[in-house]
Amino acid sequence: MEPGDAARPGSGRATGAPPPRLLLLPLLPLLLGWGLRVAAAASASSSGAAAEDSSAMEELATEKEAEESHRQDSVSLLTFILLLTLTILTIWLFKHRRVRFLHETGLAMIYGLIVGVILRYGTPATSGRDKSLSCTQEDRAFSTLLVNVSGKFFEYTLKGEISPGKINSVEQNDMLRKVTFDPEVFFNILLPPIIFHAGYSLKKRHFFRNLGSILAYAFLGTAVSCFIIGNLMYGVVKLMKIMGQLSDKFYYTDCLFFGAIISATDPVTVLAIFNELHADVDLYALLFGESVLNDAVAIVLSSSIVAYQPAGLNTHAFDAAAFFKSVGIFLGIFSGSFTMGAVTGVVTNANVTKFTKLHCFPLLETALFFLMSWSTFLLAEACGFTGVVAVLFCGITQAHYTYNNLSVESRSRTKQLFEVLHFLAENFIFSYMGLALFTFQKHVFSPIFIIGAFVAIFLGRAAHIYPLSFFLNLGRRHKIGWNFQHMMMFSGLRGAMAFALAIRDTASYARQMMFTTTLLIVFFTVWIIGGGTTPMLSWLNIRLVWNQVGVDPDQDPPPNNDSFQVLQGDGPDSARGNRTKQESAWIFRLWYSFDHNYLKPILTHSGPPLTTTLPAWCGLLARCLTSPQVYDNQEPLREEDSDFILTEGDLTLTYGDSTVTANGSSSSHTASTSLEGSRRMKSSSEEVLERDLGMGDQKVSSRGTRLVFPLEDNA
Amino acid sequence: MEPGDAARPGSGRATGAPPPRLLLLPLLPLLLGWGLRVAAAASASSSGAAAEDSSAMEELATEKEAEESHRQDSVSLLTFILLLTLTILTIWLFKHRRVRFLHETGLAMIYGLIVGVILRYGTPATSGRDKSLSCTQEDRAFSTLLVNVSGKFFEYTLKGEISPGKINSVEQNDMLRKVTFDPEVFFNILLPPIIFHAGYSLKKRHFFRNLGSILAYAFLGTAVSCFIIGNLMYGVVKLMKIMGQLSDKFYYTDCLFFGAIISATDPVTVLAIFNELHADVDLYALLFGESVLNDAVAIVLSSSIVAYQPAGLNTHAFDAAAFFKSVGIFLGIFSGSFTMGAVTGVVTNANVTKFTKLHCFPLLETALFFLMSWSTFLLAEACGFTGVVAVLFCGITQAHYTYNNLSVESRSRTKQLFEVLHFLAENFIFSYMGLALFTFQKHVFSPIFIIGAFVAIFLGRAAHIYPLSFFLNLGRRHKIGWNFQHMMMFSGLRGAMAFALAIRDTASYARQMMFTTTLLIVFFTVWIIGGGTTPMLSWLNIRLVWNQVGVDPDQDPPPNNDSFQVLQGDGPDSARGNRTKQESAWIFRLWYSFDHNYLKPILTHSGPPLTTTLPAWCGLLARCLTSPQVYDNQEPLREEDSDFILTEGDLTLTYGDSTVTANGSSSSHTASTSLEGSRRMKSSSEEVLERDLGMGDQKVSSRGTRLVFPLEDNA
Repeated sequence: MEPGDAARPGSGRATGAPPPRLLLLPLLPLLLGWGLRVAAAASASSSGAAAEDSSAMEELATEKEAEESHRQDSVSLLTFILLLTLTILTIWLFKHRRVRFLHETGLAMIYGLIVGVILRYGTPATSGRDKSLSCTQEDRAFSTLLVNVSGKFFEYTLKGEISPGKINSVEQNDMLRKVTFDPEVFFNILLPPIIFHAGYSLKKRHFFRNLGSILAYAFLGTAVSCFIIGNLMYGVVKLMKIMGQLSDKFYYTDCLFFGAIISATDPVTVLAIFNELHADVDLYALLFGESVLNDAVAIVLSSSIVAYQPAGLNTHAFDAAAFFKSVGIFLGIFSGSFTMGAVTGVVTNANVTKFTKLHCFPLLETALFFLMSWSTFLLAEACGFTGVVAVLFCGITQAHYTYNNLSVESRSRTKQLFEVLHFLAENFIFSYMGLALFTFQKHVFSPIFIIGAFVAIFLGRAAHIYPLSFFLNLGRRHKIGWNFQHMMMFSGLRGAMAFALAIRDTASYARQMMFTTTLLIVFFTVWIIGGGTTPMLSWLNIRLVWNQVGVDPDQDPPPNNDSFQVLQGDGPDSARGNRTKQESAWIFRLWYSFDHNYLKPILTHSGPPLTTTLPAWCGLLARCLTSPQVYDNQEPLREEDSDFILTEGDLTLTYGDSTVTANGSSSSHTASTSLEGSRRMKSSSEEVLERDLGMGDQKVSSRGTRLVFPLEDNA
Repeated sequence: MEPGDAARPGSGRATGAPPPRLLLLPLLPLLLGWGLRVAAAASASSSGAAAEDSSAMEELATEKEAEESHRQDSVSLLTFILLLTLTILTIWLFKHRRVRFLHETGLAMIYGLIVGVILRYGTPATSGRDKSLSCTQEDRAFSTLLVNVSGKFFEYTLKGEISPGKINSVEQNDMLRKVTFDPEVFFNILLPPIIFHAGYSLKKRHFFRNLGSILAYAFLGTAVSCFIIGNLMYGVVKLMKIMGQLSDKFYYTDCLFFGAIISATDPVTVLAIFNELHADVDLYALLFGESVLNDAVAIVLSSSIVAYQPAGLNTHAFDAAAFFKSVGIFLGIFSGSFTMGAVTGVVTNANVTKFTKLHCFPLLETALFFLMSWSTFLLAEACGFTGVVAVLFCGITQAHYTYNNLSVESRSRTKQLFEVLHFLAENFIFSYMGLALFTFQKHVFSPIFIIGAFVAIFLGRAAHIYPLSFFLNLGRRHKIGWNFQHMMMFSGLRGAMAFALAIRDTASYARQMMFTTTLLIVFFTVWIIGGGTTPMLSWLNIRLVWNQVGVDPDQDPPPNNDSFQVLQGDGPDSARGNRTKQESAWIFRLWYSFDHNYLKPILTHSGPPLTTTLPAWCGLLARCLTSPQVYDNQEPLREEDSDFILTEGDLTLTYGDSTVTANGSSSSHTASTSLEGSRRMKSSSEEVLERDLGMGDQKVSSRGTRLVFPLEDNA
């Protein structure tokens, strides 16, 4: 680990700097074993008859080795599947028994931890059989090498650089190598479904109502938190240097980078409990919106900090030009990714689903939806933007527009598909975290740094929430109360995104220390804070509003819950409706009318016909873009409502007199639920309340499905 | 390509023998770009301040290169997504206009072909920038290399051997490299969902009714076809040798290998048309069953042929010991994979879903189902068996047992999930085939070999179908008619499995020639035969039985079809019921009673309680294993029926008076459809017909959901 022992050409196997390229495979590292086996077979069949006898033995050995490697790959993947299976079964047990102190992600980490310990101490260290060449004739590394081994040529690919001190010090454990994934797997395979699902299931209504605050928390808050944590950590690092605890370089930019990666909050545990307890929707919207957006901010922020490279030799001093370049990069990547996600989501997908009649074939529609969403990710990556961010905004726009064009069948299909993908990906990441604490071979545990980091994230979160809330409250009519602020402060969990950012680069000493610290922070916050959410909610006296619709788009209130109270129509709620109307102010209103008058009619089958909203000289274009269905359902604001609510999937739709819920999980709903459904719908949609209270029979039509709510419900 | 120009240490980039390990990635080759970028970043940050200036330029160059590579990866994946998107849109158009002459897979190939041409001739050839080392000090290749480049260590992984002649002759086109996947991707990523879906959606009723014939066609038929094609091709090869058309070795085992890979039929096109036209179910069962099983047979057969390695120098002569070893390998792998798939499917999954109450949480249930099915694949691979075969039998057993334990919600979820995966994987493979015709850089077009292969597969198929049918007809009471035999002969399409087996190893000259020929055979059969299916069906005068239920488990009969006739209850149908009863004979009956009396009660919630079927001394065990639900639904054969039919998803379930179809695609069904549904159900389940015709009210209970069919339906 000391800088001194460099440049020793070791003969050991390297599990060095960037995790093995061998395991670059996102889902099936076992491929590589097969690859090797094929290579062996290839060499066996191509080498002709001449040298066959001489090489038969070594080929057999290579083949055996390849088979062994393939087997190990399968076993390592099996380990993860076993972990996930165990997690699922235990989650079920917990849900069954209504245990709330431990969330599934915390559980996944515990199981990961246990398996990590077993792998670490239970498997024998294998001897390094690999070769070190010292062909020092070149001055740079190439991505492909051809090696001539006794007349045969073998192709090798660059896996990465190895810190010279590591070559001999790494442990020679095959199994630990096998369970180590390439960090980019997290970015390119596991995060996209998680982030897309977050965007796709974002509560649009409450999200837009609190848009200003959410943007402030996500952008300003994350930046503030990043800089405060960065500076505090720089102080800690200085202290460590004085105390002689620091054995390698740790620059100011490294501290800022740490601030950026650790600023991405992921209150998955808290939100799950909010869902279950149906806690305040505004608080939910604030927390969820902030966490979704600050993931995007953190990812772009960290890459801008990495891009901060002052010119000249003095690489770690402040340089105004480089700083502004970094800010430019931040703005460029963020706005580029945002635009790319939103535009591709809107243009390609919404229009494809609008102008074709694909909804007769749900399978095709679902497949197309999946492919288009994925292509957004790839397109953004191909253009040099951040795919994860693009996918987030693609998800949001698709939930807003494309979802309306889908058939009922496809709506549930796409939701379920992304739900499963998200569930698997999230639990995989968390169990991998548990595993990584023991199987990752380059941990740098520094007690001072860890304690400093805990203090710093606490202070950073405080400096982010309280002052911002104060300023936001100046503008908000519906203030963010002290208890809400404390709850937001408390909900500063770190999760998948922080981990993925931290593991992405663990080559240097500083990064390794950051990774270890991030891992511990994630563990601590998910377990302790996750477990403390329920007591905290009651201690902070946060309303558990049982009748609030749409706490979670995917979950109906428990049908057998006796304490389920229908409280709509009473004072605070309807008063709040008025308040929020005024408070969401110009940004929301401007957007709302533009969206309602132009975007919706162009992209979906709802909204007013374009022929009425566009100026007369666009007549032809307007007729082309307006779908015939729009003329059938012309009531403008009504449509808008049905869209706002129906798309969120939290409404109980009634067909005839049986009830089909959006996620269909509780098919035992009775007719009384559908009454509740229509009541709840009214209470949550102010426009309906305002315009339609006098009407006898509420009809909300949504693409051919006409929902008729019983008359007697309107008291 | 000549053996003479070997051992020339070239400096070009190698796109050599096994496709680049760089692109080993199943779904996201773009990872590698990222990996490289990280590696570059790592080297940038870890190299300390001393050498910073000197290495800054080269690192920047490496980083740029890595970014470029990453971008290309994204673009190449985007290409595939674009292809699939185009295919989906055109399929929709075709389905919309009821075009039947071109199947979606044929379409995917055409689009692939077009893009392949563009990539091949539209992108510039890039110069090889990679390095060749000639460190000839070792006598075998290692899987990992450490290379010391001016004091820094880089880790390289073995990608594979390169045929020496190829080093300079390969084209230097980055883009073509990028769109080339590791062949093992097909085996480990794309085939499993296709095969699992085939097993999961196998028509169990008609499958079991024709089990004997299907097994005969799949096992004996494939073996016969393999040997006939192999021997004919050996003749062709001899002829080519005489004519001087053969430039490299081509052994008898190679010919047999070709026979094995080309014997895997894949009548996906024909079956799709059968579905659409609701052609004869028995013919469907024969064709589908044969094609599913012969995939498994071909995969194991080909690996046994590869394993045929006689001892001593004379490696390509006949050796009885080696032959029997191959036969042993075949039997071992096949039965091992079969057992593994069936046992894990049955024991883990069915029991997990039976003894937990996971069905309250469809998400958990679906995730678990997915993980368990995947773990079967991995377990088989870890044990050295064939994952694809294991997954097939896992799918069949899960459809038979686990499916019954799932909640209604999860049934549709799992079906839809695997349907989407299967659809995407299949179309991906076919568009890749189209692409490969132009982007694959080692084609060996040999007109004689190709013509010979077409003749051989025709003769092989004939020698497989007609004699076997003759012998089977001796035992069958319900004969396989001449028109059926001709149709089976005609349906010998080759598809995904043949391609995957052929591309798996393209290292030698013989294998390359086989690959090219296989590709052309797939193209020809899918396009010509696929297009000719409809005329052929009417020419052969094969009944299009509109009222037959369950031609396809996933498709309801078109609700708006005016020619849809309810013909149940008339002569031929009920007569056939009796005939098939007698004919399916002992194998079916034995299995049926064992399954009904023991397996079903143990593994699902249906069937008679074990306390009644097991001997008295097993009382305690029986009580433990029998779930309480069984006692509620004790009518034994009724249960059996409801299982047989409900699990296949082709029944229209009625809730109250609205209709929810199994795949929910046509939610506009009216109550009259539900009458039809119940009628059809009766007609297709002979047992119900026999036992329950006297009853007034049909109740079929399936795990808590009680379906009540209207009384007046029973005339």
